[in-house]
Amino acid sequence: MPPVFAHRIEVRFRDCDSFRHVNNAVYLTYFEQARIVMGETLGWRRVLDEAGVSLILAHTSCDYKAQLVFGDEVEIRASVVGIGRRSFTSQFDAHRVRDDALAARGRSVQAVFDYATGKTAPIPDGLREKLDAMLTTAPAGA
Amino acid sequence: MPPVFAHRIEVRFRDCDSFRHVNNAVYLTYFEQARIVMGETLGWRRVLDEAGVSLILAHTSCDYKAQLVFGDEVEIRASVVGIGRRSFTSQFDAHRVRDDALAARGRSVQAVFDYATGKTAPIPDGLREKLDAMLTTAPAGA
Amino acid sequence: MPPVFAHRIEVRFRDCDSFRHVNNAVYLTYFEQARIVMGETLGWRRVLDEAGVSLILAHTSCDYKAQLVFGDEVEIRASVVGIGRRSFTSQFDAHRVRDDALAARGRSVQAVFDYATGKTAPIPDGLREKLDAMLTTAPAGA
Amino acid sequence: MPPVFAHRIEVRFRDCDSFRHVNNAVYLTYFEQARIVMGETLGWRRVLDEAGVSLILAHTSCDYKAQLVFGDEVEIRASVVGIGRRSFTSQFDAHRVRDDALAARGRSVQAVFDYATGKTAPIPDGLREKLDAMLTTAPAGA
Repeated sequence: MPPVFAHRIEVRFRDCDSFRHVNNAVYLTYFEQARIVMGETLGWRRVLDEAGVSLILAHTSCDYKAQLVFGDEVEIRASVVGIGRRSFTSQFDAHRVRDDALAARGRSVQAVFDYATGKTAPIPDGLREKLDAMLTTAPAGA
Repeated sequence: MPPVFAHRIEVRFRDCDSFRHVNNAVYLTYFEQARIVMGETLGWRRVLDEAGVSLILAHTSCDYKAQLVFGDEVEIRASVVGIGRRSFTSQFDAHRVRDDALAARGRSVQAVFDYATGKTAPIPDGLREKLDAMLTTAPAGA
Repeated sequence: MPPVFAHRIEVRFRDCDSFRHVNNAVYLTYFEQARIVMGETLGWRRVLDEAGVSLILAHTSCDYKAQLVFGDEVEIRASVVGIGRRSFTSQFDAHRVRDDALAARGRSVQAVFDYATGKTAPIPDGLREKLDAMLTTAPAGA
Repeated sequence: MPPVFAHRIEVRFRDCDSFRHVNNAVYLTYFEQARIVMGETLGWRRVLDEAGVSLILAHTSCDYKAQLVFGDEVEIRASVVGIGRRSFTSQFDAHRVRDDALAARGRSVQAVFDYATGKTAPIPDGLREKLDAMLTTAPAGA
């Protein structure tokens, strides 16, 4: 079982819409928060800075499975589910803390980008090692 | 060529993040705005109310292709790209008005839900007719 | 020294704007979050429900004093600074946790509203007791 | 009667909260949008760039008077209501387009800031002329 990065977020009143539940777009904000905190905590950003490249977001998706409401806390559990030559795919499971229900599952594809050339670039070795260590080899379930 | 519903949105300063471009989550807000305005304009909501059912959002995805920045206007062009028994898939192309570039392409899967039974339900005939009329039969390109 | 209610909030990447600091409107979201959590924690909502009245927001203000950036945690410290017959004023100090600097000071005026009559109403006795207990009698100064 | 800058904004579904009306913090986003579009349209930014100074937001306030809901369009009417040596105060009236009701009145104090010295600076003459031309001399009514 590979390590998984977890980050807890308090649902804000402002995250909810007229249906009194967390708005669909806000899940991407939760995933983004987990993604950036993870990148800083696990040293991804340092490795990217050293290689002189950046990550750009190419794709996101989200399956909505259960509601989150004001008063809930959500735990985002992140893992890596695919690694290519110039991009990789992360998965973000949003668990409702009070009952551990899976509220939503998101995925994001990030590509390595070199602003000097204006083109995508190969994943730096240092980052590849870190991604490999987080890669979920078991079937991801969805 | 099937009819396409178009809705224009002004990019707000608040839509942009520290990278000075529209944040990834905000595209889902743009798609949602087009989706709801479309549903009211084309009479979907009336048909659903008559049938006593609602639509729930089951899945969203977005491919990011070009940046939007403050000062831009964006035109969301919506079409229907798939119709099942209890759900259907809409596509939302976000075009940057100044040069008509495709900034992002989103998809959403909406299921018909009956709150009385707590279960999904078949697409009402009245809605199916409207969806059929908007169905893009040509390859959607992505 | 009257009791003060404190609530901690993690600054999200999405809270920041193109200036790479927390956007001015987001402070009102922080104050709202503290205000609602406070109302539930201290039993205000229960007292209002029993009296059959609600609170509506009549006025907000905010003085911006120092920046908050991504990576910061902020502690909102709430107190009551004025009590009238039908409304009261709360104060929200947003402290940057890393150095305890006062990032912003907000105030909100909430009025008691009776939806049955469509008019404002006197502060219920149960709520007045709770507000009195939190009233900051020292000059609010800065 | 001094000139007033007006900017129309479509209320988004995402602007609304669990009370099914525009959230209190979103009004500051509306005022910000009008403020920045105004600054670019009326040439304030060009004058500031030439003087090598910037504007920083020191204070905001808002009186909430009527609701805005999804489906509404809002017109923000901006005027200048006070001019000091290093700062000035603008007023933003949010009118509900369908009945012209005043939904909210906001004010913002902006100070001239010189990032080279890290201090506030006098209002440049070019900006002062523009502000004087917009100054509302009649009582602002609130």
